[in-house]
Amino acid sequence: MKYLITGISGFVGGHYLEYLALKRPGVKIVGIDLSRPDTSFLNKSFREKIKFHKGSLLDKKLITNVIKKTKPDYIINLASYSSVAYSWRHPAECFVNNTNIFLNLAEAVRNSKSKAKILSVGSSEEYGIVAPANIPLTEKSGLNPANPYAIARVAQENLSKIYSDGYRMPVICTRSFNHIGPRQKDIFVVSSFAKQIAEGKLLGRKKIICGNLGIIRDFIDVRDVVRSYDLLLRKGKPGEAYNVCSGEGHKLSEILAMLQKKAGTKLPVQIDRDLIRPVDNPEIVGSCKKLKRHVAFRKEYTLSRSLEDMLAHWEKRMR
Amino acid sequence: MKYLITGISGFVGGHYLEYLALKRPGVKIVGIDLSRPDTSFLNKSFREKIKFHKGSLLDKKLITNVIKKTKPDYIINLASYSSVAYSWRHPAECFVNNTNIFLNLAEAVRNSKSKAKILSVGSSEEYGIVAPANIPLTEKSGLNPANPYAIARVAQENLSKIYSDGYRMPVICTRSFNHIGPRQKDIFVVSSFAKQIAEGKLLGRKKIICGNLGIIRDFIDVRDVVRSYDLLLRKGKPGEAYNVCSGEGHKLSEILAMLQKKAGTKLPVQIDRDLIRPVDNPEIVGSCKKLKRHVAFRKEYTLSRSLEDMLAHWEKRMR
Repeated sequence: MKYLITGISGFVGGHYLEYLALKRPGVKIVGIDLSRPDTSFLNKSFREKIKFHKGSLLDKKLITNVIKKTKPDYIINLASYSSVAYSWRHPAECFVNNTNIFLNLAEAVRNSKSKAKILSVGSSEEYGIVAPANIPLTEKSGLNPANPYAIARVAQENLSKIYSDGYRMPVICTRSFNHIGPRQKDIFVVSSFAKQIAEGKLLGRKKIICGNLGIIRDFIDVRDVVRSYDLLLRKGKPGEAYNVCSGEGHKLSEILAMLQKKAGTKLPVQIDRDLIRPVDNPEIVGSCKKLKRHVAFRKEYTLSRSLEDMLAHWEKRMR
Repeated sequence: MKYLITGISGFVGGHYLEYLALKRPGVKIVGIDLSRPDTSFLNKSFREKIKFHKGSLLDKKLITNVIKKTKPDYIINLASYSSVAYSWRHPAECFVNNTNIFLNLAEAVRNSKSKAKILSVGSSEEYGIVAPANIPLTEKSGLNPANPYAIARVAQENLSKIYSDGYRMPVICTRSFNHIGPRQKDIFVVSSFAKQIAEGKLLGRKKIICGNLGIIRDFIDVRDVVRSYDLLLRKGKPGEAYNVCSGEGHKLSEILAMLQKKAGTKLPVQIDRDLIRPVDNPEIVGSCKKLKRHVAFRKEYTLSRSLEDMLAHWEKRMR
């Protein structure tokens, strides 16, 4: 079995590698990204068999050659411009690049007559502004994308259906909810909390800077995410979209309190108005019933465990 | 008042010019297209004041310069790759070009701080596969685009909402249904019928070649289309999408019979299997209630009148 992972050097890519090293050590892996992945957390023999191509998915020639040469069985498309804030500042660039990344990949597969299964990773952002009555969001909930990034994700999902239904290519789509887990960058809220609390415990930080603590989100551990992706590739229905989420909603204030309790800190909180989005959903929680029903997904990481591992990650880096 | 019309040399562009010449002879007009428009049907003084830029909307520099120089009040975006069949053969090209055409225009307007009102022309194809229970289609009906062309149109409409709501640019969207009218190319079904019947009457053609005569469509005269576009630009709500349709469904067999009766022919019909689409909606009819309510649109061309004018157009060309 051969995997092609685009965006392999990112947060999810690293965890996918770790998952494969542990659960499918026999597979072959080809990766593409703009920079070489950090694989220091993998054992040497597994690390050495990852074949890496440096470059962009916007480079049609590169992706066409990689598909032709490597003949992958599974393709996981993690490459994207994934910042909503950036998409507001550069709407055309974000939309064009994200849709081109997907189309270049899909066309390379179509033109090479590859039979590879493709996982098209989308986002809960596709749901857009959500009425509380529609929580939890199911795959039948309407898509009302409310920023340029989300519109590109909806287009990608619609195009995936076309490749699947019209060209008979097995493309499976996700609508992935907020990720958490060790090694996540501190531009993401929970990782930022964990880092600041670790700084409070170890480096003398005196307060936590945060945005709106009242919003409710559905956080899923990245290790559950990559496991669900692998299940979807093997058992998911082509042409279908799946929520990848925990099915649980947690208020940010609750998560912050859990982290402080685990770290034994009682740092005061300071709200930074710049961290509050002008328009935001008070609550986003997904239903993962379809994921459970179609591919027998069961969540393995509790919120408590995820938070402990994130704290431990930051504390280790500070020591 | 200054109009910028992209795709000015096409079927709708020509009728828009004719409408402006008749109803708003004082306006200034700037046009862009790949080839110079045929304006032989306009009076000389109106024809001479149309400023034409030859080029593609895919050329960012061109459109940016045109917007900066001409400072239009109204922009009608008719430029597109509009063949569904072509979009199946070249999905990436069709999707990328159609969305880039719109984005290049929208970004040029945004970056020049122009206050121009933009009409973003979309298609009834955005509704995709439609259940008979959902006829007539209202603007609240779900969008399930089922070909690459339609997916690009949905993305364009979603992006229009972003430019309107997020960047405060007045963009008004249409979902335009099947057009008919004189000068329409014979690759479109009703114009093909009219041409073949005129050939039967004048040139001795013995039979009519056609596809599935059982499907029901909502045909609106192109002269009503351009009038509704002008109403929408002046009175439509930014960020909203409007069905541009007649609100009436007619079976193709009925239209064929009407044309034969008007021409005094009784040509036999031969079904060409190549003209039947593998997947097609049995019935597509729109509701134009929103168009009526918001901009006081009233249809001026009956189906009978449209068909007479189409027959007359072809007969004139054959004489």
